Amino acid sequence: MLSVTILGNNSAIPAHGRNPTSQVLQTQDESYLIDCGEGTQQQLAKYKIKRGRINHIFISHLHGDHYFGLIGLLTSMGLLGRTTDLHLHAPALLEEIINLQLKAADTILPYKIFFHPLGEECLIANDKKITVACIKVNHRIDCWGFIFREKKNPRSIDADKVKAYEIPAAYYDALQKGADYSNKKGTIIANEELTTANTAPKSYAYCADTVYDETIIDKVKDVDLLYHEATYLKDFAVKAAERFHSTTEQAATIAKKANAKKLIIGHFSSKYEVLDDFLKEAVEVFPRTELALEGVCYTI
Amino acid sequence: MLSVTILGNNSAIPAHGRNPTSQVLQTQDESYLIDCGEGTQQQLAKYKIKRGRINHIFISHLHGDHYFGLIGLLTSMGLLGRTTDLHLHAPALLEEIINLQLKAADTILPYKIFFHPLGEECLIANDKKITVACIKVNHRIDCWGFIFREKKNPRSIDADKVKAYEIPAAYYDALQKGADYSNKKGTIIANEELTTANTAPKSYAYCADTVYDETIIDKVKDVDLLYHEATYLKDFAVKAAERFHSTTEQAATIAKKANAKKLIIGHFSSKYEVLDDFLKEAVEVFPRTELALEGVCYTI
Repeated sequence: MLSVTILGNNSAIPAHGRNPTSQVLQTQDESYLIDCGEGTQQQLAKYKIKRGRINHIFISHLHGDHYFGLIGLLTSMGLLGRTTDLHLHAPALLEEIINLQLKAADTILPYKIFFHPLGEECLIANDKKITVACIKVNHRIDCWGFIFREKKNPRSIDADKVKAYEIPAAYYDALQKGADYSNKKGTIIANEELTTANTAPKSYAYCADTVYDETIIDKVKDVDLLYHEATYLKDFAVKAAERFHSTTEQAATIAKKANAKKLIIGHFSSKYEVLDDFLKEAVEVFPRTELALEGVCYTI
Repeated sequence: MLSVTILGNNSAIPAHGRNPTSQVLQTQDESYLIDCGEGTQQQLAKYKIKRGRINHIFISHLHGDHYFGLIGLLTSMGLLGRTTDLHLHAPALLEEIINLQLKAADTILPYKIFFHPLGEECLIANDKKITVACIKVNHRIDCWGFIFREKKNPRSIDADKVKAYEIPAAYYDALQKGADYSNKKGTIIANEELTTANTAPKSYAYCADTVYDETIIDKVKDVDLLYHEATYLKDFAVKAAERFHSTTEQAATIAKKANAKKLIIGHFSSKYEVLDDFLKEAVEVFPRTELALEGVCYTI
């Protein structure tokens, strides 16, 4: 099972109690941090998300509202005694920034950071339960989206059936992967007779900061949950384009054209105190939209 | 009149709703920001302190809990359209860090930052109403304290008296500075007859992060308000020394020996959820102690 918890849903300047961008994608045992605006470590504490389960951090681009909280989180992880490796997937220059800040503090972290610079669209992580690919999105500076895909879930074994057919436990692994069973007499028992399919693997696409760009549609085709920024309401389409951001209507159009199962929108401009119109406008184009609200966990 | 508002009073890791170090010293028209831990811009907003009045920022040292919030604040000031010069007094390496982060974001701020690297104990700012000096304190890395001194307040003119003595308005400025008045007949009228002294100029010493160090006493002698860190309770004196921090008892001892009028203590370790014992222990040595509490404004 995958879920996404929103830690920050505001754009550039923190305002109206809303924080700059950060989200955490969770499987049963691991957490994947996506962007890390100022205050993310405080938000993780507030929503009781264990830092120890975060082994991969993904930074979409180097505008401050997406990474100024990272150095604080990395430092705190060290002060709290972390020794586990951490993988940081980000634009290359971030390594230089972090190393300079650690040097200035005369600090050596007690754990190792592996920097994985983003440079082309490809698979960037292949973990126990999920894979992560990065995609180019279209912003004022180099900017990346991330697609998280659950690996195929193993089939569930029917305990009564394997007992009845006297199948040794050594074969269970193969059965979970879908293999048929051939007994001593050479009789083949079909996998479907012995196992049941588990839930289909889920997917989450995070599109970071981007102007309306239809080349994104194919890249996020058919995802279960799409996060697309909607910095402005639709009457601000010109301003949005100038600033390489999107509107409600544009985010919803991408979701519709990509056949996403569900859409969440965020990165709201500080100029809006109330968010009701964001939902109203997006739902007109794509009904299965929700606002990305801080502290809310969206099950995929 | 001077006052100090505490924006963050916790040490290294934000915890128990407490934020990393930041304070703002205010005169009637200007605000001086002292240190800028992560979340300072959110704290400024929370306590309704106008960023526009901040023209000088002082950073004591480059441990993250004292400056990780600075780049966010500087960027937000730019996004909000600031054009006024900003003076940044800080260890030299901070300029490199900030410039690297601005370069990564491809951002040019719409205002100018003047970097004033801290290098020796001297007067570092001479503003309309106050002067600021930096002093060396004793921490694991280069670390500076700041002493803010109000300039001598002009004497108040007694309106009835100047009228009675027929003193032209052109002389008022000299009278306010303490000059006597000599009339056309050559009679000297003593300044004390014409004016009254205003409140004595006040002073505030901020000692940043420091181990117990008696060389600080002379530097902060007789200040009206002393901020001295007290990261730990007194039973942690050995650990405090190892980490170049102080205890309650040590902070209070410095205040006592320096003949400070009042002491505030802060930079509390995250290991303490409740702060009652900090006050109890400090008051035993120096009764005029208060805890530096977030959002509280201490009038000097």
